[in-house]
Amino acid sequence: MKTKILTAADIRVLIEQVGLDELLDLLIDRLRRRFDEHDPTTVDVRTRAGFRYDKPALGLLEWMPVHELGGPIVIKMVGYHPTNPVQRSVPSVLATSSLWDTETGHLVAIADSTLLTAMRTAAASAVATDLLAKPGMVDVGVVGLGAQAVAQLHALSLVRDIGQVLASDTATQAMTSFADRVAFLGLDVEIVDPSDLARLIADVDVLVTCTSVDIGAGPVVPAGHVRPGLHINAVGADFPGKTELPASLLQQALVIPDCEPQCIAEGECQVLEPSTIGPEIATLVKEGEAAHRHRSRLTVFDSTGWAIEDEVALRLILELADAHGLGSLVQIESIPDDPLNPYEGLTPR
Amino acid sequence: MKTKILTAADIRVLIEQVGLDELLDLLIDRLRRRFDEHDPTTVDVRTRAGFRYDKPALGLLEWMPVHELGGPIVIKMVGYHPTNPVQRSVPSVLATSSLWDTETGHLVAIADSTLLTAMRTAAASAVATDLLAKPGMVDVGVVGLGAQAVAQLHALSLVRDIGQVLASDTATQAMTSFADRVAFLGLDVEIVDPSDLARLIADVDVLVTCTSVDIGAGPVVPAGHVRPGLHINAVGADFPGKTELPASLLQQALVIPDCEPQCIAEGECQVLEPSTIGPEIATLVKEGEAAHRHRSRLTVFDSTGWAIEDEVALRLILELADAHGLGSLVQIESIPDDPLNPYEGLTPR
Repeated sequence: MKTKILTAADIRVLIEQVGLDELLDLLIDRLRRRFDEHDPTTVDVRTRAGFRYDKPALGLLEWMPVHELGGPIVIKMVGYHPTNPVQRSVPSVLATSSLWDTETGHLVAIADSTLLTAMRTAAASAVATDLLAKPGMVDVGVVGLGAQAVAQLHALSLVRDIGQVLASDTATQAMTSFADRVAFLGLDVEIVDPSDLARLIADVDVLVTCTSVDIGAGPVVPAGHVRPGLHINAVGADFPGKTELPASLLQQALVIPDCEPQCIAEGECQVLEPSTIGPEIATLVKEGEAAHRHRSRLTVFDSTGWAIEDEVALRLILELADAHGLGSLVQIESIPDDPLNPYEGLTPR
Repeated sequence: MKTKILTAADIRVLIEQVGLDELLDLLIDRLRRRFDEHDPTTVDVRTRAGFRYDKPALGLLEWMPVHELGGPIVIKMVGYHPTNPVQRSVPSVLATSSLWDTETGHLVAIADSTLLTAMRTAAASAVATDLLAKPGMVDVGVVGLGAQAVAQLHALSLVRDIGQVLASDTATQAMTSFADRVAFLGLDVEIVDPSDLARLIADVDVLVTCTSVDIGAGPVVPAGHVRPGLHINAVGADFPGKTELPASLLQQALVIPDCEPQCIAEGECQVLEPSTIGPEIATLVKEGEAAHRHRSRLTVFDSTGWAIEDEVALRLILELADAHGLGSLVQIESIPDDPLNPYEGLTPR
């Protein structure tokens, strides 16, 4: 009963073999299917819980458990330490996921989920965008140009042709490096000064907000004119008091939570009357093309990050790793030949 | 930023180097000190939570998170699948612990905790027994002769001279093999038929109950005559509806929970009026010798397993592993040179 360990390096080798576009395409497709098949009576998804602190650094460590009834358990552990990039040259989000067998309680696998978290979040935005943004070529705005912005723009490019990209951040380093980081997409990227966000939001068909705005410091985006049918992927709000969009905009929009109770606790839905919140993304995906009727109105995907997305991502990457012979098998747990003798094989005295 | 992986094999090598008695002695000592220093304002201990199910097997998988404020986080994941030993030749309890740095959210270490869980549970019983059982030589009863019974008897032997051992189980395999499994202790072990438990409990000074009794099937131990000053370590009850001791016995006893809310939810305290429950073990340890006044009365340590015990065990074993150069360092997490570029080093298209 060994445990498969899939490191960041293993995942990078896998991506070189599978292709980055292909992997993200697969993830978008799996996520869409998983939303379509979602049945809350067959899966126990816990809302994110964890520790939040301001010493030794502002941060949180949270667990996101999900149990496919009768099947395995997946738990993602995710840390968010917004000062990591600037102060420690470490990503703000670090994550690992684990898979557990419910026949024995055996730890089947542990995988790096830092890159997977970025990709599954982006994939969820792609599913929402494909459903709710106008068809054809779209102009895209990106507010917050950290690691997540790269994955978001990549995922959007897989579901829409992209015209102009307008991108903005308050951090100079993030702004000046963004065009290079997304150069592989071959898009026309204009960097917009953060004082000019009103123009940015007025001139796009799809907007992504993925900032590390401080708690209580939002909204990031100003209220103002927007194009008819604007679709927003609001990704940054994932903490009580952390929001990116103005209440007035949210109140005009059809707001689609990934997981309603979690969005009410820590997403953009914090500022909304619960009765005014739209259907969850899974409900809308089930509607299929019927959901396209919302494309003509202002829509917001409130993406706090749902444990089911992590389960889909982990199971996909483990399946691919098996097919490509990647990852290491390590005997972590103590499984004596005699399960009644914990000291088997030891010299007791 | 690598992750230390400490496998069961690493821990076995460590034990060969440190000595099994010495390790358990150290653990008992650390636990006693940790209880003595316990200050609920400096540590955030979450009560155990998790998934419980009856398909594909009856079992549970739970997480036990503890955060030393300003310091690290320890999370033990523990599975309990009571049919494991007989049906799958796997221990009923499998566990792994992880240590997290709260400056960055980095996963510092993962360690097998199957043996450590058995040892820390036994060490907690030793602390309680040393405080509450009569001094001098004691006769010991053990009801439930699985893996935990071995560790319990071992730990008790480190805090008291043991006279007669009376041991009982309902499973033949556990009964017939027990004397061999504890032969290293050099004790006089009599196996008692489960129909004769009334005699067993009447003839001992210290009793340990560590069965896998089914939910709702308890109590295991009959009501009846006991020696004055009997101390009981009630270890098996750790699930709503799972109890080992009769209410009439508990009502006469001073019942010492490891963690009161957890004991009320899933320990022997389930059947008690909360107002009749005694002080927590940490409170009693702080009293020092003053707590010896309870040695003359019937006492029950309600041991459901406390996250702080797992933290002590993990930190001790990691400290020893470092000192002995054991364990492997693996780069699990993705830490690109540019924390803003999740695709660094990949061929994106």
